[in-house]
Amino acid sequence: MSAGGSSSLRRDTRWWGWGDPAEPTELPGGAERLLVEHGIEVGPVSQRPSLDRVRLPAASPIPEAVLEIAGAGNVSLTEEDRIRHSGGQSYLDLTDRRSESLAFAPDAVIALDDARRIVPLLEACAALGVAVIPFGGGTSVVGGVTPRDTGFERVVSLDLTGLRDCRIDPVSMTATLGAGLRGPEAEALLAAEGLTLGHFPQSFEYATVGGFAATRSAGQASSGYGRFDSLVSSIRIATPTGTMNTIETPHTAIGPSLLELIVGSEGAFGVIPDVTVRARRKPDVCRYEAWMVEDFEAGNQIVRRLAQERRLPAVARVSDQTETEVSLGTSVPGGVAGDLFRRYLKLRGRGEGALMIVGYEGSSIAVKRQGAELRRSLRSGGAVALGTSAGDGWARGRFHGPYLREALLDRGLVVETFETAQQWSRHSDFYSSVRRAVTERLAAEGMDGIVMCHLSHAYPDGASLYFTVIASPGRAGGPAGWRAVKTTAAEAIRSGGGTLSHHHATGRDHAPWLEDEVGRLGLATLRAVKEELDPAGIMNPGCLLPVEPA
Amino acid sequence: MSAGGSSSLRRDTRWWGWGDPAEPTELPGGAERLLVEHGIEVGPVSQRPSLDRVRLPAASPIPEAVLEIAGAGNVSLTEEDRIRHSGGQSYLDLTDRRSESLAFAPDAVIALDDARRIVPLLEACAALGVAVIPFGGGTSVVGGVTPRDTGFERVVSLDLTGLRDCRIDPVSMTATLGAGLRGPEAEALLAAEGLTLGHFPQSFEYATVGGFAATRSAGQASSGYGRFDSLVSSIRIATPTGTMNTIETPHTAIGPSLLELIVGSEGAFGVIPDVTVRARRKPDVCRYEAWMVEDFEAGNQIVRRLAQERRLPAVARVSDQTETEVSLGTSVPGGVAGDLFRRYLKLRGRGEGALMIVGYEGSSIAVKRQGAELRRSLRSGGAVALGTSAGDGWARGRFHGPYLREALLDRGLVVETFETAQQWSRHSDFYSSVRRAVTERLAAEGMDGIVMCHLSHAYPDGASLYFTVIASPGRAGGPAGWRAVKTTAAEAIRSGGGTLSHHHATGRDHAPWLEDEVGRLGLATLRAVKEELDPAGIMNPGCLLPVEPA
Repeated sequence: MSAGGSSSLRRDTRWWGWGDPAEPTELPGGAERLLVEHGIEVGPVSQRPSLDRVRLPAASPIPEAVLEIAGAGNVSLTEEDRIRHSGGQSYLDLTDRRSESLAFAPDAVIALDDARRIVPLLEACAALGVAVIPFGGGTSVVGGVTPRDTGFERVVSLDLTGLRDCRIDPVSMTATLGAGLRGPEAEALLAAEGLTLGHFPQSFEYATVGGFAATRSAGQASSGYGRFDSLVSSIRIATPTGTMNTIETPHTAIGPSLLELIVGSEGAFGVIPDVTVRARRKPDVCRYEAWMVEDFEAGNQIVRRLAQERRLPAVARVSDQTETEVSLGTSVPGGVAGDLFRRYLKLRGRGEGALMIVGYEGSSIAVKRQGAELRRSLRSGGAVALGTSAGDGWARGRFHGPYLREALLDRGLVVETFETAQQWSRHSDFYSSVRRAVTERLAAEGMDGIVMCHLSHAYPDGASLYFTVIASPGRAGGPAGWRAVKTTAAEAIRSGGGTLSHHHATGRDHAPWLEDEVGRLGLATLRAVKEELDPAGIMNPGCLLPVEPA
Repeated sequence: MSAGGSSSLRRDTRWWGWGDPAEPTELPGGAERLLVEHGIEVGPVSQRPSLDRVRLPAASPIPEAVLEIAGAGNVSLTEEDRIRHSGGQSYLDLTDRRSESLAFAPDAVIALDDARRIVPLLEACAALGVAVIPFGGGTSVVGGVTPRDTGFERVVSLDLTGLRDCRIDPVSMTATLGAGLRGPEAEALLAAEGLTLGHFPQSFEYATVGGFAATRSAGQASSGYGRFDSLVSSIRIATPTGTMNTIETPHTAIGPSLLELIVGSEGAFGVIPDVTVRARRKPDVCRYEAWMVEDFEAGNQIVRRLAQERRLPAVARVSDQTETEVSLGTSVPGGVAGDLFRRYLKLRGRGEGALMIVGYEGSSIAVKRQGAELRRSLRSGGAVALGTSAGDGWARGRFHGPYLREALLDRGLVVETFETAQQWSRHSDFYSSVRRAVTERLAAEGMDGIVMCHLSHAYPDGASLYFTVIASPGRAGGPAGWRAVKTTAAEAIRSGGGTLSHHHATGRDHAPWLEDEVGRLGLATLRAVKEELDPAGIMNPGCLLPVEPA
C-alpha cells in the first residue's frame, strides 16, 4: 500500500470531467446563438471545481487481508484516487464531481497489474463482505462504475489499467489484449502488425478493452467492422468462485454461449482480465463523405436498403433535422461548418434536410468501387453530396464530443445522451414517440431544450437511435430535472418495444427497468448466474442487476 | 388421447432410417470397388427391419393429469410412434432401430399444435416427475432426442412438428417461424415473399426450425448467410417455470445475451416454440464450381485468405485427399463423377489433389463479379477449374448423403461423422493429429476403414473440420467399435484444443466431455441456469448436461 497511491494508476485525465486536461473546452462558434434561438438561457461560465474543496464520505477501513492480497504498492487511499473512481462520465456523475460534494466514493482503489491476483482478491473480498467495482477507463455513461446504493458498507474500486498484456496470433489474426489497454493503445499494438480492430466508439481515447467487452460497446464504424461483442473470439472472467475461460475456437455448438454470457456482464459476475479479439488488416484508405437527404426518414430508408442488401459501408450515420441544424449552425470540430453549406444546399433545393455521413474503409480499389456504387444508391435516394472535406471534418471531430459537453456543462446546462434500437417496421414511429415524450417532459419540467437524434448502427432488421438532449436546468435543477427526463425516456422506449440500450449497457441507470426488458424469467436467470459465480453478491452490486430489497 | 396416435404427428419418413421411404438407398457405382481397395470387407445386403418385430421396453404409464393437459388427440401410445421417437440419426440410433431391439423408447409421444399448452404441460410433468424430450425433425446425430439414461422412470417425447405458425415482417425482413416447420416448409413460406434464410444443412429436408436454434445448426452456405444462431433475431423458450422472451431488437447492450443462452440450449432448459429470424432476398443466381488444388492444406490456405479478407463466397468447401478420392471414384449424386475428371486432371498435373466447391449466390451482377474476382484468387492459389457441371453435381446431391449412408449400413458397415473447429494457427496440425488418432484407433479395434475430412465453415480466425468414417465393424462389432473410436476422436479433439462440435451440438454423445470443454465454472453456470428454469430437471435429462450421480 502506498499513501501516494499505486504506481499503475493513471491520473492523466481531468478528475472532474472528460479527457486531456490540456484540451480546451470551448463553446464552438455559433453555438451560443443557436442555443438562444432554441430558448435556452446560457449561464455564465462557472468556475472550475477544485480537488482541495471536494467533500467525500469518510472511507470505511478495508480489511488488512484484502490489502495484503492486493499487494504493497497496489492500493491507494488518497482522496484524489477515490474521487477519480467515484463515477463515470454520465451527466449525473459529472455534475456530482463538479459540485465538489460526492455522496458516494470507493473506500479504496486497488490497481492490479497481475491478473493472477484477481481471484484471490475477490475470494477475500467475498469472505469479508467488501464490494468490488471493476474500473477500466471510467467512461461509463450509465452509472456502471459509480459506487451508488451498493448495499455494502465497504467498497473498493478495482482499477484494471495495469492489465496491459498483448499476444498476437498473426495466422489466426486474433489478439489477446489486456483489459486495461485503452483504445489507442490497443490499436497501436495491433498496428505494429498491420492490424486494426476497427472499434472506434466516441469514448475510444480513454475507454478500455475490458470495458468494451463488459458493456457490449459499438464503434462508429460498426457497420464495417462489427460491434465489439462480434469481435470477441474468446474471453475469460475471474470471479469470486474461480476463473471461467471460453475455448479459443472460431465457433462452437457445444451448448448455450458462455462467451455471450460473459460479454455484457458489466462487472456483475466478475472481472474480465483480457479478451481475445478478431483483428483485421488495417485499411489502406479511409474516405468519409457528407451527404444531405430530404429528411431523417429518407436517410433511414437509404440505410435500411443498404443494410438489407448487405452493402453498408464502414460508417453510415444519419442525423435528424435538429441535429443537422446544430451541425450546420456551429463550427464545432466535426461540424460541417455553417454558412458555406447552407448556401450550397439552398441552391440544390435542400434548405433543410438531414445530414448523412458515409465512410468507406479498405483497399483503395475496394473503397473506390464501393464509393461509386453507394453514391448511385445515395443519389437515387435523393441525397446531395457535400463532399469529403465535410466528411473529413466529421472524422477529425469524432472523439471530440465529450469536450463540447464540458463547455455546455460549464454554462450550467444539462447535456446527456441516451440510445436505443428498434426494428425497421417500427423505427420511424418509435423515433417520433420517444422524441415527443422527451420533449414534453422537458417542457413539463420547465427545461428549455433541444432534443436531437441520429442513427449510427444499422442492421438488416433495424437500427439504433442515439438521442442528445441539451437543456436549461429547469425548475428542479439540472440533476433532478434530468432524472425525470431519463425516466420518461426509458418508459417511452420500453412502451415502444425498444431496448434500453443499444451500446451504453445497463449500468445502474437502467437497472430499474431491467425486468421490464428481459422479463421475470430473464431476470431470474441472470440472478441465478450471479448467485453461482458471485454468491456473496460483491461484484459491482446494483449494476446490471438491481439490488434486491433485503 | 388417440390409440391410433395424434393427428399432427408425421410418419412420412423411414422409421428405421433416413428420409423418404420411396428414395432408393443404393451403393453408387464404383463404391464397392473403392471400399475393397481400402481393405473394407463389404457384407451382403441385410434384410430391412420390420416394425412388427421390434422389441421395445414396456411403456410406463403417464399420469392422467399430464395426458389431460396435452389434450385428447395429442397423445400417442402406439409402438410405431414410440419407435419413431426412440432416437435420432446417429450411427448408434440407426443400428439400434435396425436391430429390431430398442433399449430405450419414450413411454408416450405428445404432439402439440398449440404453443400455449407447453408451459402447463411442463409444469405438470415437473410436478409428477415425467421427463420431457423435445422432438423436432428427429435428425440429431449426437443423441439429442434419444431417451437414454435419463434417470427418470417416465419419459415423454414432445413432438413439435405441429407448431407451424409463420409471421413475416417484410419491412424488417424478419420472420417468426414455428419450431415444427421443416427446412423446405420454412423456405416455401419465405419464398412466397421473395425471401430465404439461406440455411441449408445436410439435414435440411427433415430438420426443423426449432432444432436449428436448439443446436446452433450451420448450413452449407454459412459463409454467405451465417450460421443459424446468427440469423436469430429474437427467441422464446417455454420452461417448467414459465416462458422467457427476448425482445425484438436488432441488438441490445442490456447485459449478457439471454438470446445466446436459449440458442444452443438443446432442450435442456425448455422448449423453443418459435424463432424470429432475419431473412434475405432470394438470390437470383446460384452458381457452384468445382476446383482442384494441390492438397488439403493448399485449399485451406486459399479459404483462410478469403475469410481474412472478408471475401468468402456463400459456399466454400475443401475435401482432403481421401474424401477427394472417394468423390472422384464414385458416381454418387453430387460426386464429380470419375474417369473424365481424372484424365483431365492428369493432363493438368493434378493427378491427386483436393477438391474444392465454391458457390456464389446473389444478383447476377454480383455473382458474375464475385466469381471473376475469386477465380483469380483460386488460380493464384494453384487451383484448377473443374467447371460448373461438377459444382452443380455437388449442389444436386447436397442433401443425399444420409441415403448413401443407409446403403453402407445395409452392408454392415460403420458409417459416422464427427466435426470440430479450430483456429487457423493450429488447424493443419490439429487435422493431422485427430485423423491419426482415429486411424490408429480403428486399426486397434480391427476395423478396416476410411477416414476422410472436409472444411466447410470458415471464419477469419479458423474453420471447421468435418470427418467421415466408413469402416468394417471390427472385433467388438459396429456399435462397440464406434463407441471406442468416438471416444478417441473426442479426446484427440479436446487435447488439441478444438471444440467437441462446430454444429452438431452436445447431445448425449458429447455430454461426458462437456466439463472438459467449458470448464468447472462453465458447467456450474449451465447447471445453475437449468436449476432456475427447470428445477425438477425434467427437460431432456442427460442431453447437454450429464446426469449428475444421485
